[in-house]
Amino acid sequence: MQMVEQWIQWLGSFGSDSDGGVTRLLYTPSWKEAQEALKGEMETLGLLTFYDDAGNLFGRLEGTGGERSCILTGSHVDTVKRGGKYDGAYGIVAAITALSRLRERYGAPKKSIETVAFCEEEGSRFPYNYWGSTFMTGTASYTAMEQTRDQQGVSFMEAMAQAGFGPGTHGRGPRQDIDTFIELHVEQGAILEREQRSIGIVEQIVGLHRYTVRVHGEANHAGTTPMAYRKDAVRAASAMIVDIMNETERFGAPLVATVGQMELVPNTPNVIPGEVIFTIDIRHPDAEALKVASESLVATVQRVADCMGMQADMERWMNVAPIAMDKALTDAIEEICKQQGQSYRRMPSGAGHDAQIFAAHCRTAMVFVPSRGGISHSPLEYTEPDQLEDGVRVLMDLLYRLAY
Amino acid sequence: MQMVEQWIQWLGSFGSDSDGGVTRLLYTPSWKEAQEALKGEMETLGLLTFYDDAGNLFGRLEGTGGERSCILTGSHVDTVKRGGKYDGAYGIVAAITALSRLRERYGAPKKSIETVAFCEEEGSRFPYNYWGSTFMTGTASYTAMEQTRDQQGVSFMEAMAQAGFGPGTHGRGPRQDIDTFIELHVEQGAILEREQRSIGIVEQIVGLHRYTVRVHGEANHAGTTPMAYRKDAVRAASAMIVDIMNETERFGAPLVATVGQMELVPNTPNVIPGEVIFTIDIRHPDAEALKVASESLVATVQRVADCMGMQADMERWMNVAPIAMDKALTDAIEEICKQQGQSYRRMPSGAGHDAQIFAAHCRTAMVFVPSRGGISHSPLEYTEPDQLEDGVRVLMDLLYRLAY
Repeated sequence: MQMVEQWIQWLGSFGSDSDGGVTRLLYTPSWKEAQEALKGEMETLGLLTFYDDAGNLFGRLEGTGGERSCILTGSHVDTVKRGGKYDGAYGIVAAITALSRLRERYGAPKKSIETVAFCEEEGSRFPYNYWGSTFMTGTASYTAMEQTRDQQGVSFMEAMAQAGFGPGTHGRGPRQDIDTFIELHVEQGAILEREQRSIGIVEQIVGLHRYTVRVHGEANHAGTTPMAYRKDAVRAASAMIVDIMNETERFGAPLVATVGQMELVPNTPNVIPGEVIFTIDIRHPDAEALKVASESLVATVQRVADCMGMQADMERWMNVAPIAMDKALTDAIEEICKQQGQSYRRMPSGAGHDAQIFAAHCRTAMVFVPSRGGISHSPLEYTEPDQLEDGVRVLMDLLYRLAY
Repeated sequence: MQMVEQWIQWLGSFGSDSDGGVTRLLYTPSWKEAQEALKGEMETLGLLTFYDDAGNLFGRLEGTGGERSCILTGSHVDTVKRGGKYDGAYGIVAAITALSRLRERYGAPKKSIETVAFCEEEGSRFPYNYWGSTFMTGTASYTAMEQTRDQQGVSFMEAMAQAGFGPGTHGRGPRQDIDTFIELHVEQGAILEREQRSIGIVEQIVGLHRYTVRVHGEANHAGTTPMAYRKDAVRAASAMIVDIMNETERFGAPLVATVGQMELVPNTPNVIPGEVIFTIDIRHPDAEALKVASESLVATVQRVADCMGMQADMERWMNVAPIAMDKALTDAIEEICKQQGQSYRRMPSGAGHDAQIFAAHCRTAMVFVPSRGGISHSPLEYTEPDQLEDGVRVLMDLLYRLAY
């Protein structure tokens, strides 16, 4: 029996970087090789394989019950640039492993089950996330992609066509027959590791607001401008960031706020910055709490600006609503964990996943396994072989309950 | 009689940018044209002109007293990229104007006076400042310049040779016969304007310490890392900057501290910065106060790092000692201002100038005129025509006292 860890190493060989990481961007040769290799393995394991027009790959185990709708399980095959072997890949190989072991042990299910390797989730080549799952659920259209280009200027439609996909290529568009989606994924955080739990049962995927703040001060000579005459944009921005972080902590978990990107103008040691631009990323699993926290942080920025006699412009350029996973599925996973004697915790997902796209269309569940040091999007991503197997055991029992 | 303002406009036509600014970088064609044009004007006004091997241009009014040593007055002909018409240029045209008016009115002086257009002060083409004055005072050598290249890869020695200068080209190296240097300059700050003074009498040129601070945190996912688990380098850097600025204000004027340059790693909205690098520029006219303030700010950075459980490395990469102008000359300028009924103030120079190089070798004085809005190194540099003339009146009386 092939262990999940072996599958992870095998899939990581497609697009492998010299430093042990993986770069497998949408519609590139290494991406195509990975999908084709997965297709071959799925067939070897007795699954019926097919692509849709976007390049999502499916491996179907036909149910005997004659029911039209089916269960989908899997994750995305693409990676970030210089990413790791586990993000996305784990959900695909866990699905294949679970399906092949169930088939070996129990034969065909009553209800059809499909494994999926979504073509894209990371948005690392083109400035668009969740292409695979939004295509499948009919929430994305080719029209929206027609103007999209990668950093080399290659158009999305051209890249898709070169990889052998696009309108009509495989005769399969959005799906109406998926009634359940289950995604296994590495946590990409350190909560399970710190609390020594094997399984994270995702209750919600957090909502997210993203802002750009522009602080307008006055650029001046660092030597000839007394402190009292300054309108120092970096001093104001720093005071804002200190207050944002303190207030986020006062608000309490699970609220998180991050200033990840910052630019000083002109950004030279002997000039007082006349302008500072920075981003704020704010996340919470509850829509109302997210709204309240966001408004409060915006007010904080404004208060500091007023206090220092400077102007601050704020623009919200991302607004993703939090979404809950299916309660019955979540409860079922908890029961399974208890039966299997696995340590677990219910938790929100702080990162976005394909599961959030499906949750708006069908019952959806998501299961996390630990990430060593919480490290993700890095060649250093790692989950222990036993932990990978723990997740698959949960998936197998869940699929058995739902399909057999 | 040609007014100073006309000279400023005329000199600003060499290397003029489309936006009204000036770019006249060392040894470039526009630089050479400016020096040659100045040479022509100096000759027209009856001065004996010559270059030294570095490309400094002199216009000498021979004294009748037979004394070997002479008085030098002027400033630098080079500009920053997209700079203004006044920085440097004013000191040159003020010197030429003063000398020609004195000669017209009183004939030859007892003691020889030379105007100078230093080849370089700004360090804008090659990574070296004060080439003109350090060459003249013998504190720079060709050896140090041999490895120096501009951003296009052109070597300093090659650029110098192409402009017609370099070892032996004019048979004139460092000077031993300068016993007095006087530099007029625009303030490049807003103190005179705010206090409505015509003349700034520079008492010291500030000393300067420059540091690079590297704050080491932990890069982590913005969504999956609870606030309590973070080692957020930008939060720590922000707390440091707030404390640096507050402490600088508590220390009081004339201490100034500036964080002008900052870089976040990886600098992307959805990743908690693992590293932040920023510069601190600290200036004070008193050596001991500068030392004490610097040590205190370094301790502040360290204290914040310790407090937040992070590491901060600090490197001091610039250490320029403050230097005093000649007290007798400074007193003489004050007397002249009183006699002329000019409003004035004694003040430090927060910016570096060629005067600081000469102050270590001969008695040196420096006079400021106002800069509108304190703006400098910008096409928007401006000083009113009357204010330009005010400075020249002071220079004329000072030269008269010293040389006639």
